[in-house]
Amino acid sequence: MPTTLEELVERVKDIGRLRSIGQLLEWDQDTYMPPRGVTARAQQAALIAGLAHEKLTAAETGALLGAVDVNEGDPVRQTIVRETRRSFERASRVPNELVKSIAEASAVAKDAWVRARKEDDFAAFAPHLATLVALKRRLADHVGFQGEPYDALLDEFEPGATVAGLAPLFAELERHTRELLRRIAASPHKPDVGILTRHFPRTQQEKLCRSMAEALGFDFSSGRADVTVHPFCTTIGGSGDVRITTRYHEDFLPAALFGTMHETGHALYELGLPFEHMFTPAAEAVSLGIHESQSRMWENFVGRSRAFWVAHFKELTALFPESLEGVTLEDFYRAINVVRPSFIRVEADELTYNLHIILRMDLERRLLRGDLKPADVPGAWNGRFSQLFGIVPPSDREGCLQDIHWSLGIFGYFPTYTLGNLYAAQFFEQVQRDLPDLPDTLAAGQTRPLLDWLREKIHRHGQRYRAAELIERVTGEPLSVQPFVRYATRKFSEVYAPQAS
Amino acid sequence: MPTTLEELVERVKDIGRLRSIGQLLEWDQDTYMPPRGVTARAQQAALIAGLAHEKLTAAETGALLGAVDVNEGDPVRQTIVRETRRSFERASRVPNELVKSIAEASAVAKDAWVRARKEDDFAAFAPHLATLVALKRRLADHVGFQGEPYDALLDEFEPGATVAGLAPLFAELERHTRELLRRIAASPHKPDVGILTRHFPRTQQEKLCRSMAEALGFDFSSGRADVTVHPFCTTIGGSGDVRITTRYHEDFLPAALFGTMHETGHALYELGLPFEHMFTPAAEAVSLGIHESQSRMWENFVGRSRAFWVAHFKELTALFPESLEGVTLEDFYRAINVVRPSFIRVEADELTYNLHIILRMDLERRLLRGDLKPADVPGAWNGRFSQLFGIVPPSDREGCLQDIHWSLGIFGYFPTYTLGNLYAAQFFEQVQRDLPDLPDTLAAGQTRPLLDWLREKIHRHGQRYRAAELIERVTGEPLSVQPFVRYATRKFSEVYAPQAS
Repeated sequence: MPTTLEELVERVKDIGRLRSIGQLLEWDQDTYMPPRGVTARAQQAALIAGLAHEKLTAAETGALLGAVDVNEGDPVRQTIVRETRRSFERASRVPNELVKSIAEASAVAKDAWVRARKEDDFAAFAPHLATLVALKRRLADHVGFQGEPYDALLDEFEPGATVAGLAPLFAELERHTRELLRRIAASPHKPDVGILTRHFPRTQQEKLCRSMAEALGFDFSSGRADVTVHPFCTTIGGSGDVRITTRYHEDFLPAALFGTMHETGHALYELGLPFEHMFTPAAEAVSLGIHESQSRMWENFVGRSRAFWVAHFKELTALFPESLEGVTLEDFYRAINVVRPSFIRVEADELTYNLHIILRMDLERRLLRGDLKPADVPGAWNGRFSQLFGIVPPSDREGCLQDIHWSLGIFGYFPTYTLGNLYAAQFFEQVQRDLPDLPDTLAAGQTRPLLDWLREKIHRHGQRYRAAELIERVTGEPLSVQPFVRYATRKFSEVYAPQAS
Repeated sequence: MPTTLEELVERVKDIGRLRSIGQLLEWDQDTYMPPRGVTARAQQAALIAGLAHEKLTAAETGALLGAVDVNEGDPVRQTIVRETRRSFERASRVPNELVKSIAEASAVAKDAWVRARKEDDFAAFAPHLATLVALKRRLADHVGFQGEPYDALLDEFEPGATVAGLAPLFAELERHTRELLRRIAASPHKPDVGILTRHFPRTQQEKLCRSMAEALGFDFSSGRADVTVHPFCTTIGGSGDVRITTRYHEDFLPAALFGTMHETGHALYELGLPFEHMFTPAAEAVSLGIHESQSRMWENFVGRSRAFWVAHFKELTALFPESLEGVTLEDFYRAINVVRPSFIRVEADELTYNLHIILRMDLERRLLRGDLKPADVPGAWNGRFSQLFGIVPPSDREGCLQDIHWSLGIFGYFPTYTLGNLYAAQFFEQVQRDLPDLPDTLAAGQTRPLLDWLREKIHRHGQRYRAAELIERVTGEPLSVQPFVRYATRKFSEVYAPQAS
């Protein structure tokens, strides 16, 4: 006879298995499914999502959770019980009819958003946004919050995070970023970014991306890389089957190259989760912010470092001998670290990126509190944008209509991107203390010491620690913007300094 | 409020959706899954199969089936109710513990078979075969049968088929085939098969196969073609998502070419099932035999016809200008229709193929009746083989260990391959009566009239008619071996006749 705890764990695994099957349905839809498969796919995905939700919120789950002691078993079992109880309680607090209403409203809103963006017609999207904000506000009320409604939504993606905790950090980050941007704008020493928009043949880019993913530590016996319109990383079979995707632009090298490094960063986290606890919270990421810290670390702190390209610049130029003729390592390093205010978040550099997030979090909070009417979003967006960047989007397409998130009813997700940057910087300062020769190691083409450190300190624990606890355990300090500010100041001061030639 | 019938149909669709998800899990495993994904995949597949089985055999399903009148609604609803009742009753008669025992024994037996075949060691496989035969005999007793135990197993793949019905047909087929083989063996006019074993570059074969699939009517907006070790056709999303696979041998053109045509034949059936009834028996194939009739028709009756190659030989030689230099249409036509006794079923020509099946059905029947001990299979195999083919396999690897079926606990499946040949011939005689200019149409590169005829007569009905009823409705006659014998006699007499040169 299995014990109650064993029975609970098996149930949790079935829920995890169903979700992983949902991931495969999505991955296949985005990669290989023929166009006319879409009708069946929507039905299959809805069925699996429904079964997973049913199993999580079933009375049997509640009974098992009620019958086990959270302190029973080893830390792994404790993690599973604690996190399952959290998911169960959160899900149980929300009425089914509200979940369904949100799903239905999102399906309609997404189509409306696609059209509205195409036609630059915010007014056509505004009523849908209003409906979704009202529904998510109701959801927040059901879930409950201590500070403001936004907390209840944030908590879904970044457990434990609150506006009270984030707002001061983000305000400090804004101040430092704007100061640094002023200095960058004033520098006459701009990188030549034209070298990145030459012609880079796709087959060569494919070779480069595969090689760079492997150089970072991606293991193709436990994963794949495919092509999709929007790049992503998804886990199909625990740390035995993690898949990334990218897209290729022949006239813009960074899209595929850094997209691949970013998704590889996510993948390395998933590949480092404990295989034996697959399908349970003991083998799931801490939070979206911590996940993003891994993708940003490999993309920016490693992939956009001089040290990394000391090891790989020769391979790069060998793949594109014509396009990169006469380009030096230093030219390339500066070009991939250009900083420029721009309208589109997903195209932003690593410094201005955070301002895009700060803007969105401000507006989301106000929408959820009821202080900002959905119809007034364009004005609020453009006003804040001008304040942050000194420029105003020429259209809502390039402004408040650019992101898909709101049309899917997703609010409270954006801050995890900036949290990722902050966590990454703080982890990276620590690893440099722990491994003083890391720059030399990277310059010698060895990423394994860094990966081993991340696995030991972060990956192998799954959800054992919350983000706040983890960052303190690993770095000895609570989350702070200072490591990121120090990193960015040092790096961009150097990139924009007068060059010896 | 949905009616009871609507509720039942929705339940049936959920079962169909779960099964289709199982198909995707398998397809992905065979095509793109990374090697280390296998642990998770086994768990995911078992979960989905279990959920589908649970839903089919649940008390609610029985209650709904009990509450609807089989004559209620249109023919589509009647088909759904009738076939679901059949599946429910069959599944309900078999104890869960037996289903589990068979699954477990098969898992072990499959590994044992792989090793036994590799080492040509039948004795190592014999105990596993004995276990599976005993379990399947128990299954047959639970399912019930009128004639002999084999009927209960046959009925799973070919509903309504019995030994009493098949045995006389197969005996007649054996007699005619052996007579025709004697004449072929005596002919001094042998095709030159060497032209098919020259070098055929893979990229060119890929172009050919894609083009031939399209020439037969495969629609790549509702399907895909990929590469696997063993070719198959699978349906992921009703007639909107049907996928085929093939394998390429650069030194043997027929493997990929006719493999593709065969799987395309299966796919065209699935693509012709009614989209609006997706996931129900009204959009499922009648039986494996009828399914095989479609693959054999397109592979052999069309793909190995002279008329088809009149239309496509130019394209073929343009793709392989060196390898096919000096080869005439007639040379090619004769080479792809060579008839030669051989040991391996999957490599057999369309005439000797049926003898391989007759041998297997004989042995399976005797095993299930208990007249043949599993340990005595090699002797029985070789004895019957010698009688049928005039040669004896040099090893069990090339004899009774060659097929995977028994190791998976699959008995009663083999006859559907030969039924496919017989159905195909009888359908093909009829379509030639209905469309007298079919050879000219095919020679002009038009396959659409044939496909339209198959869709109208067979595909669109799903499981509305059983195989025996269908063949009589379409051809006016019950199933007979005569059409196949006439077809084979005419074709092979001509292939092996003296050639004008």
